[in-house]
Amino acid sequence: MSTKPLKIAIAGLGTVGGGTVQLLSDHAELLAARAGRPLILVGAAALAQPADLPLDGVPFFADARAMAAECDFDVLVELIGGANGIALEVVRTALERGRSVVTANKAMIAHHGVELARLAEAKGGFIGFEASVGGGIPIIKSLRDGLSGNRVTKVMGILNGTCNYILTTMRESGRDFADVLAEAQALGYAEADPTFDIDGIDTAHKLAILASLAFAMPVNIEGVACEGIRHVSALDISYADELGYRIKLLGVAGLTEAGVETRVYPAMVPLSFPLAHVNGPFNAIVTEGDFVGRTVLEGRGAGARPTASAVVADLMDLACGRVGPTFGVPVNGLNALPTAPAGAHRSAYYIRLMVKDQPGVFADIAAVLRDEKVSMEQIIQRGHAPDETVPVVMTVHETNEAAMLNAATRIRTLPAVEDLQLIRIENL
Amino acid sequence: MSTKPLKIAIAGLGTVGGGTVQLLSDHAELLAARAGRPLILVGAAALAQPADLPLDGVPFFADARAMAAECDFDVLVELIGGANGIALEVVRTALERGRSVVTANKAMIAHHGVELARLAEAKGGFIGFEASVGGGIPIIKSLRDGLSGNRVTKVMGILNGTCNYILTTMRESGRDFADVLAEAQALGYAEADPTFDIDGIDTAHKLAILASLAFAMPVNIEGVACEGIRHVSALDISYADELGYRIKLLGVAGLTEAGVETRVYPAMVPLSFPLAHVNGPFNAIVTEGDFVGRTVLEGRGAGARPTASAVVADLMDLACGRVGPTFGVPVNGLNALPTAPAGAHRSAYYIRLMVKDQPGVFADIAAVLRDEKVSMEQIIQRGHAPDETVPVVMTVHETNEAAMLNAATRIRTLPAVEDLQLIRIENL
Repeated sequence: MSTKPLKIAIAGLGTVGGGTVQLLSDHAELLAARAGRPLILVGAAALAQPADLPLDGVPFFADARAMAAECDFDVLVELIGGANGIALEVVRTALERGRSVVTANKAMIAHHGVELARLAEAKGGFIGFEASVGGGIPIIKSLRDGLSGNRVTKVMGILNGTCNYILTTMRESGRDFADVLAEAQALGYAEADPTFDIDGIDTAHKLAILASLAFAMPVNIEGVACEGIRHVSALDISYADELGYRIKLLGVAGLTEAGVETRVYPAMVPLSFPLAHVNGPFNAIVTEGDFVGRTVLEGRGAGARPTASAVVADLMDLACGRVGPTFGVPVNGLNALPTAPAGAHRSAYYIRLMVKDQPGVFADIAAVLRDEKVSMEQIIQRGHAPDETVPVVMTVHETNEAAMLNAATRIRTLPAVEDLQLIRIENL
Repeated sequence: MSTKPLKIAIAGLGTVGGGTVQLLSDHAELLAARAGRPLILVGAAALAQPADLPLDGVPFFADARAMAAECDFDVLVELIGGANGIALEVVRTALERGRSVVTANKAMIAHHGVELARLAEAKGGFIGFEASVGGGIPIIKSLRDGLSGNRVTKVMGILNGTCNYILTTMRESGRDFADVLAEAQALGYAEADPTFDIDGIDTAHKLAILASLAFAMPVNIEGVACEGIRHVSALDISYADELGYRIKLLGVAGLTEAGVETRVYPAMVPLSFPLAHVNGPFNAIVTEGDFVGRTVLEGRGAGARPTASAVVADLMDLACGRVGPTFGVPVNGLNALPTAPAGAHRSAYYIRLMVKDQPGVFADIAAVLRDEKVSMEQIIQRGHAPDETVPVVMTVHETNEAAMLNAATRIRTLPAVEDLQLIRIENL
């Protein structure tokens, strides 16, 4: 094994880049002892040189592309972000040069992972992306190495800290979505444009990566069905409590007979399931393997220091020679599994209706459910307020998704029904 | 990287050995695809040749020592068990021959880990012991690789499935310790001689291994203070529920200014802490790192298939060349940190007294606590039954352990006090 320094060039000195530079400086001695060789910075690139980072003597590049093309590094750490643009350009350049890449960029791996893995294989580089999913949680290594003796049949998790913070705060404060989102934005926990987080896109990127590793398939971001948390109301959260559930935004990937299902949706999670107790900015991932059974990994899903921990774990793997194919097997060994048709999914559901309190309304709703063969489990309706709008909550037994959606469409057209919200119940 | 088969000799064909043989057979193709080379069995040793395992054509040895000395393997899988004896002998032989070892043997690693690591370093072998702690949970790899960018300050967990099963069953059924233990023995969940499990020795072995990896210190089993669960009563479990806690047998290792603390004890864990929800045969380990913050890993802590998953994960590391020093750094880089003095530990406590309901008893108890500067938080005493024995439960604020033990000793001597049980409260 080499005892020469591992030469690192870092592109992007924002939150995660700053944390990574800090870790490499704070723990230089510790890392060298563990790796048997020093990890040194030989280049740093950002739009402006930050004053508060320990970068003395490290060559600075105002253009990351120039650094990727000219600097003599072993590994490029890409922390610029974005699926395309400069991030993708510098990663391609580094791999073309036969160097390795470590990245936190889930969008890039989700959209271009297979192409980049192929390039890395052809040129002899390694791609580390532990930081792209679950912040500091070592989930990529667990799936690739720690659980490598298993056929994984399911991987699911709470993968977005912003959504989990919003849902946790809504529950604890009883406040509504828009209000908590605005506060999260003011506190810097949510972006000014929160679409990526709250519409589930960030979770979809991460889920596509996990599914690729778990099932040895090419990353397939187009195959992910995606639903966010905008429609989850304080009322739903309070009913969930009453019914013994917590509402969480989940990414769920499973192998079924009909193919692979990869879906992002808010779900009611029973209190007996570990994910129900994962709160605030924490992430957690549940994996089901045929030998190991269920494992759960939990930790901070974002932030400078936890994400830097994951970036440096990849750098340490590289320094120690613990490297292999990007997705666990060579690209040609990945199997493009079919995506299961959407309507074939089966789930139990929570249904919240806002209805005019009029005679006969409930008979109409029940008739629709009967026609669609959707079987009710329980109903909560409180008090009696003639001609006013009141909530009616139902749960239904596990049913075919297409049937449930048909029933919902028909119920929404009933004159007395003003609103209908569906939330899946994840009975685990 | 080698594409030649990885030649495996397996010593011990009991529960875990059987599971490992099954996994290697069931997933031969999958493992070969992931490792880029086949994993093949070249020898199997046990007292008697089992009929129901896929071992056709595999040379069988009735003496594991002969196999270790003569068979041409790359790696010996030691699943015999026991700190010494044949297990230790065959491992030493394999390492002396420059071969690698994979083992599930926590007692052996806890007692002889440093000596074996030194031998492996001298002769060029690798020692994998993922299966020695937490069954299928990839905790060894997480500490060694996934969290390698961190200075770890604390590692704690539920490490013994038998104790967790007993404590969970006691809570769910309201039954007492002896009764549930007897049932667990009848069901095969507890050994005929349950000492290793219920007195915390098995947990101590695992904790010593985790502390070694977390703090880069030589394994120090003698430094572990160990208390089991025999004295935990159904009454304590029911009071814990009332106070918002679960009682769990914990192994806790922490770095303090006074040195390393490694302790095994039953503790009251608040419901807000992830370990409170780890039930039945599941294990979980919490790690605190200075960059990553808190991570939690949960999974099945024992059993043929989960443990085989961990054994094979080590074999895959070896097949893929992902190898390094046994405890993360070379033996000479391990620092023998001092053990913190026992009495210096600070903790909150639950105290359950059985007292004769007589005037003045409580004043005597309160006086002792005042003298020892132990500050009460709350008291539960129900009803009034003159001259009968009644339970009195108190919780006290965080206090010095020596003071608490002094107070307990003095209170036990009070004439009206028939019993006093202390359980630490883990306020996290």
